[in-house]
Amino acid sequence: MQFLSDNAASVHPQVWQALQRADTADTPYDTDTLSRRLDEAFSALFGRDVAALWVATGTAANCLALSTMVPPHGAVLCHREAHIETDEGGAPGFYLHGAKLVLAEGEGAKLSPEAVSATLGAIRGDVHQVQVHALSLTQATEYGLSYRPQDLAALTSLARERGLKLHMDGARFANAVAFLGCSPAEACGDIDALSFGCVKNGAMSAEAIVFFDPVLADVARFRRKRAGHLQSKGRFLAAQVLAMLESDVWLANARAANAAAAEIARAAGERLLHPVEANEVFLRCTAKERDALRMQGFGFYDWGPDAARFVAAWDTRADDARALARAIGSL
Amino acid sequence: MQFLSDNAASVHPQVWQALQRADTADTPYDTDTLSRRLDEAFSALFGRDVAALWVATGTAANCLALSTMVPPHGAVLCHREAHIETDEGGAPGFYLHGAKLVLAEGEGAKLSPEAVSATLGAIRGDVHQVQVHALSLTQATEYGLSYRPQDLAALTSLARERGLKLHMDGARFANAVAFLGCSPAEACGDIDALSFGCVKNGAMSAEAIVFFDPVLADVARFRRKRAGHLQSKGRFLAAQVLAMLESDVWLANARAANAAAAEIARAAGERLLHPVEANEVFLRCTAKERDALRMQGFGFYDWGPDAARFVAAWDTRADDARALARAIGSL
Amino acid sequence: MQFLSDNAASVHPQVWQALQRADTADTPYDTDTLSRRLDEAFSALFGRDVAALWVATGTAANCLALSTMVPPHGAVLCHREAHIETDEGGAPGFYLHGAKLVLAEGEGAKLSPEAVSATLGAIRGDVHQVQVHALSLTQATEYGLSYRPQDLAALTSLARERGLKLHMDGARFANAVAFLGCSPAEACGDIDALSFGCVKNGAMSAEAIVFFDPVLADVARFRRKRAGHLQSKGRFLAAQVLAMLESDVWLANARAANAAAAEIARAAGERLLHPVEANEVFLRCTAKERDALRMQGFGFYDWGPDAARFVAAWDTRADDARALARAIGSL
Amino acid sequence: MQFLSDNAASVHPQVWQALQRADTADTPYDTDTLSRRLDEAFSALFGRDVAALWVATGTAANCLALSTMVPPHGAVLCHREAHIETDEGGAPGFYLHGAKLVLAEGEGAKLSPEAVSATLGAIRGDVHQVQVHALSLTQATEYGLSYRPQDLAALTSLARERGLKLHMDGARFANAVAFLGCSPAEACGDIDALSFGCVKNGAMSAEAIVFFDPVLADVARFRRKRAGHLQSKGRFLAAQVLAMLESDVWLANARAANAAAAEIARAAGERLLHPVEANEVFLRCTAKERDALRMQGFGFYDWGPDAARFVAAWDTRADDARALARAIGSL
Repeated sequence: MQFLSDNAASVHPQVWQALQRADTADTPYDTDTLSRRLDEAFSALFGRDVAALWVATGTAANCLALSTMVPPHGAVLCHREAHIETDEGGAPGFYLHGAKLVLAEGEGAKLSPEAVSATLGAIRGDVHQVQVHALSLTQATEYGLSYRPQDLAALTSLARERGLKLHMDGARFANAVAFLGCSPAEACGDIDALSFGCVKNGAMSAEAIVFFDPVLADVARFRRKRAGHLQSKGRFLAAQVLAMLESDVWLANARAANAAAAEIARAAGERLLHPVEANEVFLRCTAKERDALRMQGFGFYDWGPDAARFVAAWDTRADDARALARAIGSL
Repeated sequence: MQFLSDNAASVHPQVWQALQRADTADTPYDTDTLSRRLDEAFSALFGRDVAALWVATGTAANCLALSTMVPPHGAVLCHREAHIETDEGGAPGFYLHGAKLVLAEGEGAKLSPEAVSATLGAIRGDVHQVQVHALSLTQATEYGLSYRPQDLAALTSLARERGLKLHMDGARFANAVAFLGCSPAEACGDIDALSFGCVKNGAMSAEAIVFFDPVLADVARFRRKRAGHLQSKGRFLAAQVLAMLESDVWLANARAANAAAAEIARAAGERLLHPVEANEVFLRCTAKERDALRMQGFGFYDWGPDAARFVAAWDTRADDARALARAIGSL
Repeated sequence: MQFLSDNAASVHPQVWQALQRADTADTPYDTDTLSRRLDEAFSALFGRDVAALWVATGTAANCLALSTMVPPHGAVLCHREAHIETDEGGAPGFYLHGAKLVLAEGEGAKLSPEAVSATLGAIRGDVHQVQVHALSLTQATEYGLSYRPQDLAALTSLARERGLKLHMDGARFANAVAFLGCSPAEACGDIDALSFGCVKNGAMSAEAIVFFDPVLADVARFRRKRAGHLQSKGRFLAAQVLAMLESDVWLANARAANAAAAEIARAAGERLLHPVEANEVFLRCTAKERDALRMQGFGFYDWGPDAARFVAAWDTRADDARALARAIGSL
Repeated sequence: MQFLSDNAASVHPQVWQALQRADTADTPYDTDTLSRRLDEAFSALFGRDVAALWVATGTAANCLALSTMVPPHGAVLCHREAHIETDEGGAPGFYLHGAKLVLAEGEGAKLSPEAVSATLGAIRGDVHQVQVHALSLTQATEYGLSYRPQDLAALTSLARERGLKLHMDGARFANAVAFLGCSPAEACGDIDALSFGCVKNGAMSAEAIVFFDPVLADVARFRRKRAGHLQSKGRFLAAQVLAMLESDVWLANARAANAAAAEIARAAGERLLHPVEANEVFLRCTAKERDALRMQGFGFYDWGPDAARFVAAWDTRADDARALARAIGSL
């Protein structure tokens, strides 16, 4: 009973079907029929004209998006525990040619306008210090918190005043939308680009970058090729993304994962380190308790010496979640 | 009847089966059972200990391989018409952090020891000129020529004398092996890394980089993550590569493509611009003749004003090849 | 009697005086009184508002200027024998983060509109090929030819039609102005940035980058610091540049060098490989003839097996030039 | 009476004399007689074979040194307040091609083995996190503290165990040596490269990078050219550096600056934020007190709301230091 991560979950049946349907002759790269449908599909989803590109990983999505916003001599402001800072193997440094990540603090990896202001305020405007050109938020955050539309409004308005571009790492954007119960547009707010996560949510090997500013998308197309991410059989990536969007598979999957996490969270009670607002549960538990859980067959990560992280995926079995909830309740 | 390229061909049934078999729980990235079998599978293929990494595209394979051999202040020597120079959107400049491509000449995009020597000889050894650190060959070349083992011996011995590393772009390595009728080891010679092409040859989205020097593989693992190419469901890439190797699908597919190309070549006779030593046919034909062929339903690229390129794929139907051969014969 | 290069010539007395006058307390970097006078001094010289930055070398000047015009995924079009391609140790690859140099041909390292058009025309507009974002010209060229104002008009108009930025490597801009007898503005035409060479022309360690577009200068200031080129005692660089401009030292020095070259050229007659339109003389001469000249105490570079290059500097003694002219005449 | 910084101080008379003596014909770049004497001069100073390169700025010295030790996918560990992190405009990101700076804590910008161990220990060894390849120390630190030989021994031994290279930013190395009263070799310990500061200590525009590993120096020579830092009249930089070393001008100057700082420190008493172990004095004082000092003609930087920084230079007049000491004593 695996709660290690959603990042290696199985592939959704509708994604499989779409992949197989895509196995017919078509033109290479992103010139095929499916790839050319992405803009329209995401424009419908967000209720405005957007340009969307497929790419194989969240790291590439984040970094390609940011590379269109930040010059090599600039910086991205993000949370100290943002995935781009802690777990992407230095990819932002590669894609942004040495641009800096400037780090801000905030409970649960969530940025507040105050934290952002304070961080920006500490940077002198001269050439000796690296100037921030973009703000990157994670929705839901690395600790499973979801920014409310009003949180986003405050942050984006602050960013716009400072002339900053905005990027959202939406590796678990679907989970945030499912939790918030709002529209996708409301769950991202007025940003420039969104890494729209699919792999953790039922796809095999395709994410989408949604550009709300088409000029950035044009740059991203060149950068994607230059990064070796323009697959020649791109139709198979487009197929996956479109399958996720069709009949709202993306949302149904996220709801399933969130529901499993919610069940675990209810059992965890006082142990919870963070409110559960997506599909991740962080809870206080001793090494001994963790051993006990593992003895019962549950897989999960330690989170420091006194805590553990459990992630529910779209395909987490209800029985497994229930079993884990019970086991946690009985600790 | 499509002869535009092999790069968007369909996916081989055994690859599909392997993909579906891979859809079971396993650990993420390259820690899964399948990914961990790659080294062994390629070691068996090449008869020596190698380390192999999957990656989604040939561009990424080439550039990651080269990034382990060439410092940012160095250069790669390659042919003026090498794919890395002409068609990878500047990816070598990105992956090698501005290292230079130093270009040499040679008929049919094939390098000779003389051409390599002459090019190296024109570079002063001082800091004002960029020094070559690696040689990159394409097997089969961009014009469908295959280096013979003795060609490779001469080139690698020259490179070694100069202290150069060696990389082979094997986007169509299978076609070269099939044409040469030698072992894979003989078809690459004493090199440091091989981009072992699968996508053009029946895979969906996986290539392999084979490192003959394991130290380079260790660097490449960090670089792959940093480039956003470490997919979390990496088992699906490993599955494809392993499926290509099992029961020599890779070789059977290449033979099929080569056979189709050979049939076309026989009909082309005097029109051939280059000997056909893989699955590509370049032939002299006027705009009028090209129109005539297109009227009969054949798809292909113009190659300058007076020539055309036809590429056979693993799934090119024998009937289609025959039809094209007849049509060319009747021009 | 040294004719190897002008790049290690002595420092002009007025530059020395200015250096010594600058040795008083002032604020660091480019905030001192002298550095703040540069914009005005160059605006006066070019008859329009410009922004000027000092920098220690021509390589840094060229590359910083270009780094404000060309994104990492773009390219600079220049001549195959441009200094940035052949003699800057890969600095453009470093400063432009792997952007490409796209090379065009032309007699005497001089670009023609036809050559530029042909080179641009050979690049497909798709993401697989690197797109040109800027054109870089050298005035006077690496073979000592000077672009006429009408040459520049044709090239800049072509570049503007294509949306290209324009950079001029003016390592020997003074020599071109002296030869052309036109204004500095006419000798550079409608460009975006000029590397205004001083070191070869009597300065010790200061060049200027003149930006005709102030937005680019703002970027360059950040890039200069980031490249470690913002010297803390910047007043000593500003002092050198201002000393060159005052009472037209720059022009007087260039005229002296050109006059010496002209004298040598007259003696060379039929041997000349290129017209002498600045301070460099390339002439046909055998190894034996070169030996003979060296026996008489003349220093110069071989230029391939059958030619030699002689460079006159601002401080070349008239006697030495005359002696060399005589020696060449007597070969 | 200027105590803002030592970075814009005047040029020492012996440096001026050396500059003027260097104004004779010689070969360009670093092939001249003076440049070729650097290795020997520094080998004598450090009592072992070293290779030394001149370069115009401390930022370039630090970053070129580090670029020989850390691959683009690696990291440098340094203090959170190290100059390379806070004040070099992102130059390390540029020179190291996006390598990361990993930050450790420590009083007075001084690293302890414990802080370094803790920081290293928090990094997982997998490809998702950037691995540290080098440690960079500042001697004296950004707060004017000097590492004792035994501090260095502990840090270098820790670094060596972990396979890390070692760099020392010695912008104020002379002040540390003067304070410690030990040999230069003892003041740097077993490191790989030292940025030997001259500009703050009486030079005009030259620093030295001292490589204790000659292989790194060979790389640095290519990198220096590639960064546009190989000046053609390099003899003028070599002359400055040699003048600093001759008859121990470097040490005498540092002693003078330290003595002035010590005098100020004695007057500051309890106000001192850090022990004064070089030429910088940080002291607690209110805005009102700072106003009072400025009214008396003293120039210095605020250091946050409740402190001020005073820097003595080699040319700080004893009278001025005494006046400042008195003024502080009377606050």
